[in-house]
Amino acid sequence: MTTDERQTLEQRCINTIRMLAVDGVERAQSGHPGMPMGAAAMASVLWQDFLRHHPANPAWLDRDRFVLSAGHGSMLLYALLHLTGYDVSLDDLKNFRQWGSCTPGHPEYGHTPGVETTTGPLGQGFATGVGMAIAAAHKAARFNRPGYNLVDHYIYAIVGDGDLMEGVSQEAASLAGTLKLGRLIYLYDDNHISIEGSTDLAFTEDRAARFRACGWQVLEVSDGNDTAAVAAAIAVARNDERPSLIALRTRIGFGSPHKQDCASAHGEPLGADEVRLTRECLGWPADRDFVVPDDVAAQFLRARERGAAAEREWDDKLAAYRRDHPDLAREWDELHDPDAVSRIAEELPVFPPDEKGMATRAASGKVLNALAPRLAGLMGGSADLAPSNKTLIDGEADFSAADYTGRNLRFGVREHAMAAALNGMALHGGLIPYGGTFLVFSDYMKPAIRLAAMMGLRVIYVFTHDSIGLGEDGPTHQPVEHLAALRAVPNLRVFRPADANETAAAWKAAMERAAGPTAMALTRQNVPTIDINLEALRAGVARGGYVIADGDGDGDPEVILIGTGSEVAIVLEAARLLAADGVRTRVVSMPCRELFAAQERGYRDAVLPPAVTCRVAVEAGATMGWERFTGSGGAVVGIDRFGASAPYQELYRRFGFTPAAVAERARGLLRTN
Amino acid sequence: MTTDERQTLEQRCINTIRMLAVDGVERAQSGHPGMPMGAAAMASVLWQDFLRHHPANPAWLDRDRFVLSAGHGSMLLYALLHLTGYDVSLDDLKNFRQWGSCTPGHPEYGHTPGVETTTGPLGQGFATGVGMAIAAAHKAARFNRPGYNLVDHYIYAIVGDGDLMEGVSQEAASLAGTLKLGRLIYLYDDNHISIEGSTDLAFTEDRAARFRACGWQVLEVSDGNDTAAVAAAIAVARNDERPSLIALRTRIGFGSPHKQDCASAHGEPLGADEVRLTRECLGWPADRDFVVPDDVAAQFLRARERGAAAEREWDDKLAAYRRDHPDLAREWDELHDPDAVSRIAEELPVFPPDEKGMATRAASGKVLNALAPRLAGLMGGSADLAPSNKTLIDGEADFSAADYTGRNLRFGVREHAMAAALNGMALHGGLIPYGGTFLVFSDYMKPAIRLAAMMGLRVIYVFTHDSIGLGEDGPTHQPVEHLAALRAVPNLRVFRPADANETAAAWKAAMERAAGPTAMALTRQNVPTIDINLEALRAGVARGGYVIADGDGDGDPEVILIGTGSEVAIVLEAARLLAADGVRTRVVSMPCRELFAAQERGYRDAVLPPAVTCRVAVEAGATMGWERFTGSGGAVVGIDRFGASAPYQELYRRFGFTPAAVAERARGLLRTN
Repeated sequence: MTTDERQTLEQRCINTIRMLAVDGVERAQSGHPGMPMGAAAMASVLWQDFLRHHPANPAWLDRDRFVLSAGHGSMLLYALLHLTGYDVSLDDLKNFRQWGSCTPGHPEYGHTPGVETTTGPLGQGFATGVGMAIAAAHKAARFNRPGYNLVDHYIYAIVGDGDLMEGVSQEAASLAGTLKLGRLIYLYDDNHISIEGSTDLAFTEDRAARFRACGWQVLEVSDGNDTAAVAAAIAVARNDERPSLIALRTRIGFGSPHKQDCASAHGEPLGADEVRLTRECLGWPADRDFVVPDDVAAQFLRARERGAAAEREWDDKLAAYRRDHPDLAREWDELHDPDAVSRIAEELPVFPPDEKGMATRAASGKVLNALAPRLAGLMGGSADLAPSNKTLIDGEADFSAADYTGRNLRFGVREHAMAAALNGMALHGGLIPYGGTFLVFSDYMKPAIRLAAMMGLRVIYVFTHDSIGLGEDGPTHQPVEHLAALRAVPNLRVFRPADANETAAAWKAAMERAAGPTAMALTRQNVPTIDINLEALRAGVARGGYVIADGDGDGDPEVILIGTGSEVAIVLEAARLLAADGVRTRVVSMPCRELFAAQERGYRDAVLPPAVTCRVAVEAGATMGWERFTGSGGAVVGIDRFGASAPYQELYRRFGFTPAAVAERARGLLRTN
Repeated sequence: MTTDERQTLEQRCINTIRMLAVDGVERAQSGHPGMPMGAAAMASVLWQDFLRHHPANPAWLDRDRFVLSAGHGSMLLYALLHLTGYDVSLDDLKNFRQWGSCTPGHPEYGHTPGVETTTGPLGQGFATGVGMAIAAAHKAARFNRPGYNLVDHYIYAIVGDGDLMEGVSQEAASLAGTLKLGRLIYLYDDNHISIEGSTDLAFTEDRAARFRACGWQVLEVSDGNDTAAVAAAIAVARNDERPSLIALRTRIGFGSPHKQDCASAHGEPLGADEVRLTRECLGWPADRDFVVPDDVAAQFLRARERGAAAEREWDDKLAAYRRDHPDLAREWDELHDPDAVSRIAEELPVFPPDEKGMATRAASGKVLNALAPRLAGLMGGSADLAPSNKTLIDGEADFSAADYTGRNLRFGVREHAMAAALNGMALHGGLIPYGGTFLVFSDYMKPAIRLAAMMGLRVIYVFTHDSIGLGEDGPTHQPVEHLAALRAVPNLRVFRPADANETAAAWKAAMERAAGPTAMALTRQNVPTIDINLEALRAGVARGGYVIADGDGDGDPEVILIGTGSEVAIVLEAARLLAADGVRTRVVSMPCRELFAAQERGYRDAVLPPAVTCRVAVEAGATMGWERFTGSGGAVVGIDRFGASAPYQELYRRFGFTPAAVAERARGLLRTN
């Protein structure tokens, strides 16, 4: 093949991507054609000349990761997946954005082979990639040995203006720079256009200087369609110890005579006339959509052979590694063993009954430290609150640029990037990431928590200081609505354990849950360690709620008191007051409301007999949602206002979280029901 | 006074601040002494030599604003407020962090005179100050005339490492740089320490270079205790068109022999022994706390005279302005007239009944444009989604560095900074700020929304694309849990209007509400404009919920269907199906659940008669919280999973939001109830 022919083929490869995107959006009459048209060249170069992946096995452990942070350009990714031989057909492209297709509006992890993470909410892909790079650096440091680079891949992303404007990307960039994550290579699709118009409207900062300030190598390519320049920049990026941002000047809607460089190319179909003109402009067959020339198809499909060869080579390397480094190989296997968590039950610490007790955050720290030696993949940290969140693994090194083997992460005051990075770590495989901050600051993390839930990732959030019980720091630090807000997130489980043993059981449940994230809500203040049969407690926590104490006598109780977390001790005391009055009272601890709600009716009715309508739920948080469990005849003792700054005992008194107030509420119900 | 004496006095002023902070924390046995000890010198210089304020009138319009973004250092601010003569007594300082005191753990706006904004959650003060600077620049451009600088003040802040690590501050910094907000002067307390230890652990970026990249002037002061250098830097900052960051190298816990430069100085009392040593080290009287030397008191109190003189001068200027610029003065008065909103009812557009109808986001845009000419303070924009959010005021200029008179703001893809800036604009006074994005991205804004609610600010959020009804963009863009999450926030009102006229009424309610923020949840898709008496509709929306259609016949209905937003039309149709079966059905539109819940029982029971237990609530969002209105015997048609990518009509069918499905649900209840 001559250079001319090759260039022609190269150009046609690029135009194939462009026109598949245009046609997909046009067929759906919905979507974002402009970004794929502008970024097709860089994507083609990256996927053909650099990306090490195996389309027939998207799960190959040592593949490069590709993140389309500008997720609205999803047709770019779907086109690449189709062309390089993933299980994404041309018909799938034609079903873009339709019910049941594997080509939804934005890329969804777990939904489409080859999609490494769900993107669309801007900045998330950027920060998630940083988590992937953390995971890769950590595993490389732990497992690679001379001649055996088991972990030897890059994290690539295409990021757009929106990604760089979002604060989460700055947090992640600063962290990546500090950690010198040299395997990160981000292509910045610098097209000067956002939805409202020119980026000059709102985004005039010197992006290159900002990233350099954060410790990144910044490379600039003045024409994003210059494939040689793109390739040269990527090659330079691969050989640097710093993370790299390659800023490529591109043209949104490239090839569309009337929409190139226009905001109107961003988020709507080009329209039939403009599609025709674009075909003409790009030298594409007229009046045919979803065209893939044979030589283009063959060219892209070479990714399959390259991938198969690369994976075979890696398999051989792993086999030799098993022979020469058997101990490390065992650890490697353990890391990737989905059943590893099933062996943790026996490691859980047992806390003896104790009236003084301990804060559940303290118990959480002890559980974490008991599990860490046995769970090779447990790795995490805090957003600069480790001493408060009790998230440090004792005796473990910090994960730092100087030592990537450490499992203690230092995220800095960057809750949002932390949450996104945890997603990336979980996606990378083998790791069970956790991250801590105060519960109130879950607000900062919410967009990334949502994606963890959507992707079904095993991520654990260690949220301490979980109510007004944190006391003097006051309303800015006291969560009120946060339990409700988190419980409303589909596929997220929120545990608010009542004492040290419930905390251990909650950790167990979180570990054993492979299909989604778990948030722990833990106290700052001490709570008694309750005297209860441990087996019953663990079984009960695993079902989200259970009878923790029951009044004497047969048949249904007269009153049911439901509590969570630190309020369970209050409710138990209230039950004693009621018992003294001769009221048969049941106490239900409900550490995970949504898990309890998911139990079969028989269990739920056994815990909360429908005939017992006198029910009081007690939780130092917003009342929203408790009516589902108390019913119309019940009452909720909660807090639907912001808290206050004072010692917590005073706050509990002032806001009515006392045994006497709860008992009085129950008596009131008994009088009227 | 000789220079030596002055220096001695100056030093003692600074040490007074330090020791008041130490003593306040020690007395409370809770708090953050280290930051005030390190930042006392810069604060003293700023408050004595530069800050133009009037302690006897904290509401003076042309005062400089001071924001303590590092809000955990609240004792620094309380000491300054006390010393300069605000209504904060020495006893108040002694009651730091106690129930009912005006000196809570973190500064709270509206709670303590002189506190300009609530801070504590890091980054918020930084970004809120940018909103204040936007407001100041806008008002200056609109009202200042040669010789009459009515708006002529600075926005100062002290920001810490945590503030700079948070992504929201980067968003705000980039925006401030683009807008060239030269009245912003931020003192960066660069103390090299965060809670987990040295900032080297996680924060090694070149902060100065980053801010320069964002268009800021950066000044560096190598010794934050060098008062002359601090003063010189502030003077330079005041004379630059760019926002300024003054990085001052400080020592956390300065003066404490064992805790200076240690993370342990950050968030806990020094302890009695260390307090004693600190007093010794700073040359302070031993064994006495809360010491304010007489000459120090007199020196700080001069702020009152200075402030009174400055305000008098400004009053004179305003009087002359009224004479020479009567039209502008009228506009000025209108801007600051709390009753201005009461005159908007007649401006509201009226939408005739229309089966095709329009999207409520479109109606919102029309309402906004009807109100903008009559409400001088209405000002806002979108986080790069103006064409979708319909947030542009037609014919109004952009607020830009070239023209600060415009009321259309371009926030860029920076939802979080937008929300915080809206707070700052509202705090600055006179403006009614609004900001738009997709409802799902309210997640990015939540920490700032929470503060708006806590501070009771009139801020309006224009959240469009409010459900799976946005269709093809898919689950990443489809809110599910967001209505529940926002409704759980104390003092926030969420309106989800059913049609164009309800949208107008919701805007009216939002405008008329001075004591807190309102979130609008608006459709992307068209909804019918319902045929109903307009007066009844407006009265009903103002109460949060009302009977929008009632079955024929006397007495209670057999079934009540409750809907919000786009589901009201579905529910009305379902009622027709039920009526055809002879079922007497009431339809309740409940655009604001929390407002309805706040009505007196009589009204609520009239709308939802307790005897009618067959109730179905229908909303394309999480079901959480609806049981409060449906009761134990009712049902909720909602969505407790993530959505999907497809045309919205198909999604509505698949997820059961159809008249037939709703009617069937009601029939099922009738059978079993």
